[in-house]
Amino acid sequence: MDYQQLIEEVYREVQAENLKGKVADYIPEIATVDPNQFGIALVDLKGNLYGVGDYLTPFSIQSISKVHTLTMVFHRFNSKLWSRVNVEPSGNPFNSIAQLEYENGIPRNPFINAGALVITDALCSKFENPLEQISAFINEIAGCDCVRINQAVMNSEKNNAARNTALAYFLKSYNNFENSIEEVLDVYFSHCAMEMSCVELAKTFSFLANDGYSIYANREILSESHARRVNALMLTCGFYDEAGEFAYKVGLPGKSGVGGGVAAVMPHKFSIAVWSPELNEKGNSVKSIRALELLTDKLAFSLF
Amino acid sequence: MDYQQLIEEVYREVQAENLKGKVADYIPEIATVDPNQFGIALVDLKGNLYGVGDYLTPFSIQSISKVHTLTMVFHRFNSKLWSRVNVEPSGNPFNSIAQLEYENGIPRNPFINAGALVITDALCSKFENPLEQISAFINEIAGCDCVRINQAVMNSEKNNAARNTALAYFLKSYNNFENSIEEVLDVYFSHCAMEMSCVELAKTFSFLANDGYSIYANREILSESHARRVNALMLTCGFYDEAGEFAYKVGLPGKSGVGGGVAAVMPHKFSIAVWSPELNEKGNSVKSIRALELLTDKLAFSLF
Amino acid sequence: MDYQQLIEEVYREVQAENLKGKVADYIPEIATVDPNQFGIALVDLKGNLYGVGDYLTPFSIQSISKVHTLTMVFHRFNSKLWSRVNVEPSGNPFNSIAQLEYENGIPRNPFINAGALVITDALCSKFENPLEQISAFINEIAGCDCVRINQAVMNSEKNNAARNTALAYFLKSYNNFENSIEEVLDVYFSHCAMEMSCVELAKTFSFLANDGYSIYANREILSESHARRVNALMLTCGFYDEAGEFAYKVGLPGKSGVGGGVAAVMPHKFSIAVWSPELNEKGNSVKSIRALELLTDKLAFSLF
Amino acid sequence: MDYQQLIEEVYREVQAENLKGKVADYIPEIATVDPNQFGIALVDLKGNLYGVGDYLTPFSIQSISKVHTLTMVFHRFNSKLWSRVNVEPSGNPFNSIAQLEYENGIPRNPFINAGALVITDALCSKFENPLEQISAFINEIAGCDCVRINQAVMNSEKNNAARNTALAYFLKSYNNFENSIEEVLDVYFSHCAMEMSCVELAKTFSFLANDGYSIYANREILSESHARRVNALMLTCGFYDEAGEFAYKVGLPGKSGVGGGVAAVMPHKFSIAVWSPELNEKGNSVKSIRALELLTDKLAFSLF
Repeated sequence: MDYQQLIEEVYREVQAENLKGKVADYIPEIATVDPNQFGIALVDLKGNLYGVGDYLTPFSIQSISKVHTLTMVFHRFNSKLWSRVNVEPSGNPFNSIAQLEYENGIPRNPFINAGALVITDALCSKFENPLEQISAFINEIAGCDCVRINQAVMNSEKNNAARNTALAYFLKSYNNFENSIEEVLDVYFSHCAMEMSCVELAKTFSFLANDGYSIYANREILSESHARRVNALMLTCGFYDEAGEFAYKVGLPGKSGVGGGVAAVMPHKFSIAVWSPELNEKGNSVKSIRALELLTDKLAFSLF
Repeated sequence: MDYQQLIEEVYREVQAENLKGKVADYIPEIATVDPNQFGIALVDLKGNLYGVGDYLTPFSIQSISKVHTLTMVFHRFNSKLWSRVNVEPSGNPFNSIAQLEYENGIPRNPFINAGALVITDALCSKFENPLEQISAFINEIAGCDCVRINQAVMNSEKNNAARNTALAYFLKSYNNFENSIEEVLDVYFSHCAMEMSCVELAKTFSFLANDGYSIYANREILSESHARRVNALMLTCGFYDEAGEFAYKVGLPGKSGVGGGVAAVMPHKFSIAVWSPELNEKGNSVKSIRALELLTDKLAFSLF
Repeated sequence: MDYQQLIEEVYREVQAENLKGKVADYIPEIATVDPNQFGIALVDLKGNLYGVGDYLTPFSIQSISKVHTLTMVFHRFNSKLWSRVNVEPSGNPFNSIAQLEYENGIPRNPFINAGALVITDALCSKFENPLEQISAFINEIAGCDCVRINQAVMNSEKNNAARNTALAYFLKSYNNFENSIEEVLDVYFSHCAMEMSCVELAKTFSFLANDGYSIYANREILSESHARRVNALMLTCGFYDEAGEFAYKVGLPGKSGVGGGVAAVMPHKFSIAVWSPELNEKGNSVKSIRALELLTDKLAFSLF
Repeated sequence: MDYQQLIEEVYREVQAENLKGKVADYIPEIATVDPNQFGIALVDLKGNLYGVGDYLTPFSIQSISKVHTLTMVFHRFNSKLWSRVNVEPSGNPFNSIAQLEYENGIPRNPFINAGALVITDALCSKFENPLEQISAFINEIAGCDCVRINQAVMNSEKNNAARNTALAYFLKSYNNFENSIEEVLDVYFSHCAMEMSCVELAKTFSFLANDGYSIYANREILSESHARRVNALMLTCGFYDEAGEFAYKVGLPGKSGVGGGVAAVMPHKFSIAVWSPELNEKGNSVKSIRALELLTDKLAFSLF
C-alpha cells in the first residue's frame, strides 16, 4: 500500500466535494482561523511519515488532548477511577449536565466534558505540576519539543468558562472532585489549548496503533490490554453524540476536537491525523470525517 | 492457536468462578430453563467447529435474531431505512420510550426494541410471508434445517406484549410504521422465539467474520462494506446500555439476548456463540460475557 | 355586580384586541370550524344566566369533559384511585410519554391524557354502559337533555389514535389499566367528542362553584371537601404546561380543551364558560384565556 | 371563629398523631435542632395574634425567605424579569439542573433554587447593599427589629455550596446572571439563614392576605393585583414537587423551608406560620403540613 498516494487521492477527492460547515465560534481565537485549511498526516509503525495539504500547520487540538490525559492516569483506571467515571456512550451532547444529574454525578465516559474534568482532576491529584507533566508527556510521545499552549486561546476559554465551571461544581456536589476547581479548570483549558500540526498529532497517537509501545518515546506507554481499551473507548465514545455514525462509516477508533482536528488509529498499521476547521452541527470536522471515510473505503479495511 | 483447547480452558475457568445472575422471569417458558447450563461453540472461516459444555442444546435466541432481520433489509439501509432508524448508541434501557419521544419517533439504533420493530416492519413491507423468509434465511446461513420457533414462548411474549405494543403505536404516531401493528408484532415475537444451539448460532454469524460471505450458504450475504457496518453497529449498540463496557472489556462486535445467549465475531478469524441463562442487571448473560472477556484476554487480540 | 354588562365589556375588549392563534388541525372535523366564533356564558349560584356572542352555539368540549369523568369516580379517589394517578402538575406537554416512564406508569395528574385514560378506565370498571352513564350525568348537571356526541369527530379521533393507544398500552405494561384498551379508548374519544354550548357547559360546572351542590340536579354531586379538591386540581393542572401562567394571570380553577373552550369557576360566586377556536402554541384558546384574565381584573377579585 | 381555640385544637390533634420525619441533615447547624419542637402562630388582618407551642422560638426560615426577596423585585416582574424566570410548576426536585438545561437556562419559577438565584441576582443589581435592604424590608413588614442572620448556618451553607454554585454558573452560561456569583451566593445564603419565630414570620406574610397592604409597615407593599399573583405562584409552586398535593389537601397559598417552617395565607382572613423540624421525603415539614390540612378542614374553607 502506498500511503502517500492514498492520502493524496483522498485529499483531492474531499477537496473536490466542496463540503461546507461552520468554524467553531465560541472563542474569537478559533473563530478567526482560515476555514479553508485542510491537512492529512499518516504515520506507520516504523515511523515513516506521509503528509498532504496543511499537515505541518499547528492548530488547536482541543478535546483530542483528552486522549493524552486519559492515558496518563489510565493505569489507575482499573481500580479507583472506575468508580468515578463510566465507559458508556452518552447519547447526549458533550457538555450536557442533565445526564450527570440522572446518573448521580458519575460521568458516562472520560471524553464528554464532565468525564474529562474528572480525569484532569485525577491528574492534579497525582502531579505537583500537572501541566508541565502533560506537556512533557505529549512531547515525549511526539518525539520532539513541539507542543505549545496558545495562551490567548487558553485565556479566551477561561473567560467563557461558565458551563464547564458549572459541570465542575456539579461533580463536586456529588463528591466526585478532589482539587480546587479553579486549578483543575486552568489545567483543563491549558491542555485543550495546545497546538500541534497533523504530523505531530499523528505521532502522539502512534502507540495506540502499536499495542501501547511508542517508537518515539522508546517505551511502553500503556500495556497492550490497556491500549486496546483506550481504542475501544475512542470507538464507542470519541465523537460525542456522533460516535455511532463514525464507527459505522469509518470504523476506526478516533477522537475529534472543535478545532477541526481528528486523530485516529488503525491498530497494527498506522495512526493518522486530519484537520480542517469547518464543523458539522455535532461539532465534528466535515472534511476530516469525510477524509477518513474515503480512506477506509479505499483501504477496504477497517477494524471490522 | 488450538481453539478447542482455548474454549475448554475458558469454560473451566468461568465455571470455577461460580458467577451468579438471575434468569429472565418475564415469561414462564424462559424462567423455567435450567440456570446451570453453559455452552460455547466457535466456528472458524474454514468451517471447523469447536464446542464445549451445552453447546448442542437449543435455547431461545431472542434479541440476537435482530442481527438476522437487520441483515435481510440492510441493502435498503443506505437509502430509505436511514431516515427511519439511527445508528447511535442509546444510553438507555432497551425498551425505553422516553428517548423515542425526545427524538421524534426515530429509534436510536436497530437493536433497541423500537428500532428492531421498525426493521421487522420493513421486512413485513418487503415480503408476503416474512416469517417464512426469516426462517429460510437463517436456515440457509446456518447450513441446516435447524431453526424452529418455540410456539409456547411466542404465545407467552404475545400475552406480555403491552410495552412493545406501546412502542409500536408510538412509532405509528410519528408515521414511522407501515404495516398492521398486530402483524408486525406477531412476526417480531416469532423471530425472537426462535431456538438454536450455540453451534448453529455461531454458524449464522460466520458471514460477519468473513467480509459478508457465508461458507454455509455459499454466497455473499452482505457486501464487504455492509458486513463491516453491521459489525460496527453490534460493537457500539449490541449490548443495550452495556455496549461500552462490552467493547471495553471484550472488544468484539456481538449481540446478546435475554435468553442468555451472546453471538460475536472476530473479523477474519471466527464467529462464536456462548450461552448461559443467568443475566446481570442490564440483561446480559453473566457467564457468556465473562467467557468472551477471558477468551480475548487469552487470545491477546481483539479488534483493537 | 352586573354580570351581563361585565361580560359584554370583556367581549368587546377582547374582540378589539384582534388576537390570533391557530385552530387545532389534527382532525378535520375540528379544523373546519369557523375560527372567528367567540362566546361567553356566566351562571351565578341562583341560576341566573348571562351570555354574549356565540354563547348558544355547540362546540366540541374535548378535554373539558375530563372534569366530568373525574367527578364521577372522585369518591374512589381517596382510596384506590390514589395509587393509580397522582395530583401534581406535570411540567410537560399533555400527551408526553417520557414522564410516564420516569414515574413508572403513574400519571402525574388526571388531566393529562395518560391520567384521563386511567379515569376513563376506572369508569369502565364501574359501569356496564359507561358512555350512557357519562351522558346521563352531564345532562343531569346541565339541567337539560342537551349533550350529544359528534360521531364524526369521534370517528376521526379514533382514526388518529396512535398516540393515545401507545399511552394506554404503556399504562397496561405497568399494570395500571384494567379493561380492554379498545373499549376504554372508545369511551374516551366519545366523551371528548361531546358538544355543548357555553351556557350548557357553564351549567355543568355550577356545582364546583357551589361547594359540590348542583342547583340543576338538585343534589350534592360532590362533598364540599371533594369539590374543593377538584377545584385545586384544576388550578394546578387544568391548563397543561400553562397551568402556572393561568393561575398567575387569571387565578381561577378551570379546564381548557383543544376545541377552544374553557370552563372555570369563581367559588361561591359563579361558573363561566368561554369559547373561541383559535389556540396558542400550548393548545389553549387565545381569546378565551384573555377574556378570563380581563374578567378577573375587572372584578378585582380572584381566588387570591 | 375563635382562632386561638382552633389552633390549640389543631396543635393537640397533630401532637397526638405522633408523626415522624427526618430533620434536614445537610448542615450541622440545622441538624442539631430539637426535632420535637412545634409551634403555630396566626395573625388576623387587624393584627390580633394567636399562638400555641413553640411559636416564639426563632428558627431558620430558609426558602421561605424567597417570598420576601421575590416581593422586593416583583414590580420588575411584569417587564424585564419575565424573560429571566418563568411561573410554571417544575415537576422536579428543587435543586434539579436537568430541567434548566432542557429549558435553556430559564428557571421554571422563582421558588426553585435556580429561580431564587435569579431573583437574588436581580436584587444585587438593584441595591448597593442588598443584604441590608432585605433585612430592613423584612423587619419593616414584621413590625419589629427582630430578624437576624445566623452566621454559623450561613457559613455552613457556604461550605456546602457546590450544587447552588453549579446552578449559578449554569445560569451564567445562558447569560441569565448579571453579578458576581460569589456575591450573589453570599446574599442568597444569608437571607436563607435568617431566623424568625412563627409569630414574626406570620406577620411578614400578613400583607399577602391583605391585598398587598401591610398593617405593620403601614403601606402598600404590593399592588392588589401583584399580591394576588404572588399568592398564585405560592399555590402552584410553593412546595417544590409537592405543590399539587399541598394545593389539593390544604388549598392555601404558602411556602415551605427545609428548616421545617411553613408560612401560608388565607386571603382576606389571616396569615399563619407553622414550624416543626422533621421533614417528609420531599423536604416539607410533616407536622406543619398536617396542621394546615387539619386547620382548613376545621375552618371548612380554603381558597376553593
